Amino acid sequence: MKTQVAIIGAGPSGLLLSQLLNRAGISTIVLERQSREYVLSRIRAGVLEWGSVELLRKAGVGTRMDAEGQPHDGFHLAYNNQEFRVDVHEHTGKRMMVYGQTEVTRDLYNAQDDIGATIIHGVENVKLHDLKSNAPRVTYELDGENHKIQCDFIAGCDGFHGVSRPSIPDDIRTEYEKIYPFGWLGVLSDTPPCADELIYANHRRGFALASMRSPTRSRYYIQVPLTDKVENWSDDAFWDELKRRLPVEHANALVTGPSIEKSIAPLRSFVCEPMQHGTLFLCGDAAHIVPPTGAKGLNLALSDVHYLFEALQVHFNTGNSEQLANYSKTALDRIWKAIRFSWSMTTLLHRFPDQTDFDQHIQESELRYTAQSNAAQTSIAENYVGLPY
Amino acid sequence: MKTQVAIIGAGPSGLLLSQLLNRAGISTIVLERQSREYVLSRIRAGVLEWGSVELLRKAGVGTRMDAEGQPHDGFHLAYNNQEFRVDVHEHTGKRMMVYGQTEVTRDLYNAQDDIGATIIHGVENVKLHDLKSNAPRVTYELDGENHKIQCDFIAGCDGFHGVSRPSIPDDIRTEYEKIYPFGWLGVLSDTPPCADELIYANHRRGFALASMRSPTRSRYYIQVPLTDKVENWSDDAFWDELKRRLPVEHANALVTGPSIEKSIAPLRSFVCEPMQHGTLFLCGDAAHIVPPTGAKGLNLALSDVHYLFEALQVHFNTGNSEQLANYSKTALDRIWKAIRFSWSMTTLLHRFPDQTDFDQHIQESELRYTAQSNAAQTSIAENYVGLPY
Repeated sequence: MKTQVAIIGAGPSGLLLSQLLNRAGISTIVLERQSREYVLSRIRAGVLEWGSVELLRKAGVGTRMDAEGQPHDGFHLAYNNQEFRVDVHEHTGKRMMVYGQTEVTRDLYNAQDDIGATIIHGVENVKLHDLKSNAPRVTYELDGENHKIQCDFIAGCDGFHGVSRPSIPDDIRTEYEKIYPFGWLGVLSDTPPCADELIYANHRRGFALASMRSPTRSRYYIQVPLTDKVENWSDDAFWDELKRRLPVEHANALVTGPSIEKSIAPLRSFVCEPMQHGTLFLCGDAAHIVPPTGAKGLNLALSDVHYLFEALQVHFNTGNSEQLANYSKTALDRIWKAIRFSWSMTTLLHRFPDQTDFDQHIQESELRYTAQSNAAQTSIAENYVGLPY
Repeated sequence: MKTQVAIIGAGPSGLLLSQLLNRAGISTIVLERQSREYVLSRIRAGVLEWGSVELLRKAGVGTRMDAEGQPHDGFHLAYNNQEFRVDVHEHTGKRMMVYGQTEVTRDLYNAQDDIGATIIHGVENVKLHDLKSNAPRVTYELDGENHKIQCDFIAGCDGFHGVSRPSIPDDIRTEYEKIYPFGWLGVLSDTPPCADELIYANHRRGFALASMRSPTRSRYYIQVPLTDKVENWSDDAFWDELKRRLPVEHANALVTGPSIEKSIAPLRSFVCEPMQHGTLFLCGDAAHIVPPTGAKGLNLALSDVHYLFEALQVHFNTGNSEQLANYSKTALDRIWKAIRFSWSMTTLLHRFPDQTDFDQHIQESELRYTAQSNAAQTSIAENYVGLPY
């Protein structure tokens, strides 16, 4: 098989890149290890930056998002039984869109179906070859048979555990990492959210987040030790602990119900530099991971796709490869700022194992200062809604 | 002896409180362990917030400061051989005043002389008595003789190692502390400063600060391990290391010369709560310490004096003691924000012993984001120039 851009991974970044390229007349083949059903069953992020919203519209997949997504103009920060609202729209002129990653992925699959894009599921043993040549190849197995794709470029959209990042030789690659000493226990439930907007809560017992997917589906999280097992957390124990950590007004308004998904996720910051090697370009989790505090993971993947799509389009339309040569540098500039913001929100809101009373007072003082400072709120708001591409 | 307010300590906070109270017709006696010459020989801070400038003017000690001090509209942040300017005046409408603590203290002594205030030097074995009664006493020894002061209130302006803070019983007092794993090696020299404004530099070898006292007197600092001894740092070694850490343009402009003072100071954050007990009220270093990054120490002491003076004046003029009863709460609200700011500037700019490449990238990303964000610069500027009283 031949194509212009071989895309490894059919998550939101791989599908969006394929969608944008196809609409620009550039051919793609998308390879995915899992089944379509599996990809669509993953519960992931739920808050889109305004730049992500505009990019999805530009890709022709904004119709259902605009109809069913919930625009949010702000969010709440809570500490020590107080809370305040950061009015993102007032400070930036933009807003967020609450719309689950699962829904984004579904819309992208449907759009790819409509234009007859090639997405091959269930591939195994994917390998990338001759990345530094002008004739790179991707080989894989499907149903026990060997296949080969000849292409001009390869986009590595295959996540943290994918084959793309390790295809950049060790001596060229630098990896930066921080592992946080706690996890998030998350519960999805078909109950109305306890508040109209997200609440990020600093509490001496640990962080809590009240979030939602729709007016009838809530998503809540509490910080737990990494040693906790999800099977030891009953629904009742989860709701009890969540109530202790939310401001009392919201704890009282909390409607509980059976969990329809419950899991513990570790928190990690990770960056790989560079994000390109010859004809290979990494997007999203293949190159970087953020802790979920601040909702940057999916949004960063989409902004990578924006930069890569623009650079590929210029290359194929004009033969000028300067943007493509600068892809890693351009993307990393924005990525490190989001890595910093996610680290800073995580550090501000979580209880660390070695945290002293001094440290707790520093967190609460920062929140109290932010509650009273227009400048501090604007700074958080502009990062939360997404720095410009 | 009898007086309305006994003041322990003749540093800038004790002298300023005495000056403000005397001008308001409230009698004071100031006790100081050291000699006047010793107090005036201490080399300390050099940057006044705008609120401090206005407070000193209000106390009638602003004339020489306004003539000889250097108003600064901004300062510089440097990292990875780049730098940017935070225009404090543009962001806040206020400016800082570079004018040494030694000069402030000298002006206060002269003003106290002019109004015939009582300052007793060389006192020993100071003790505070009956703080919870309405007839507290201070006893001390002078030249081997015992003395006693009867008063209405006692102001503890006697610094971190003074007698006042420990006079608050242990079971009432909570102390919050953080010790930083490095110190500042400071050099004073009669050389023109390498730049018109202060430069705070993050460098992989450690923090550096280029500061000044006047157009012909410079004050420079470099971060050093706590195990370093000042006698092992020759002037040449200091200048060489400073040059390595400053942006190359300023390193090249650096005029070196013999040090006229050279010392290593540890960095500490410390807060005592509450700052009052019965008739005793703490001001400045007696109650809190900040690391010098951000120049908040002297300024916090002066804002404490402002709150205490206002509360005492209302009490003596009207008999209403509500402000006095709330002194600790009012002062601590502003203090914790300055503690946070000083901690945050220290954390952003210093190299920590366990710092990873990820941590270094976080610092540089925060500086790069700040360089490009109006909101982030406004937030730093409003803290640097001093939050409102």
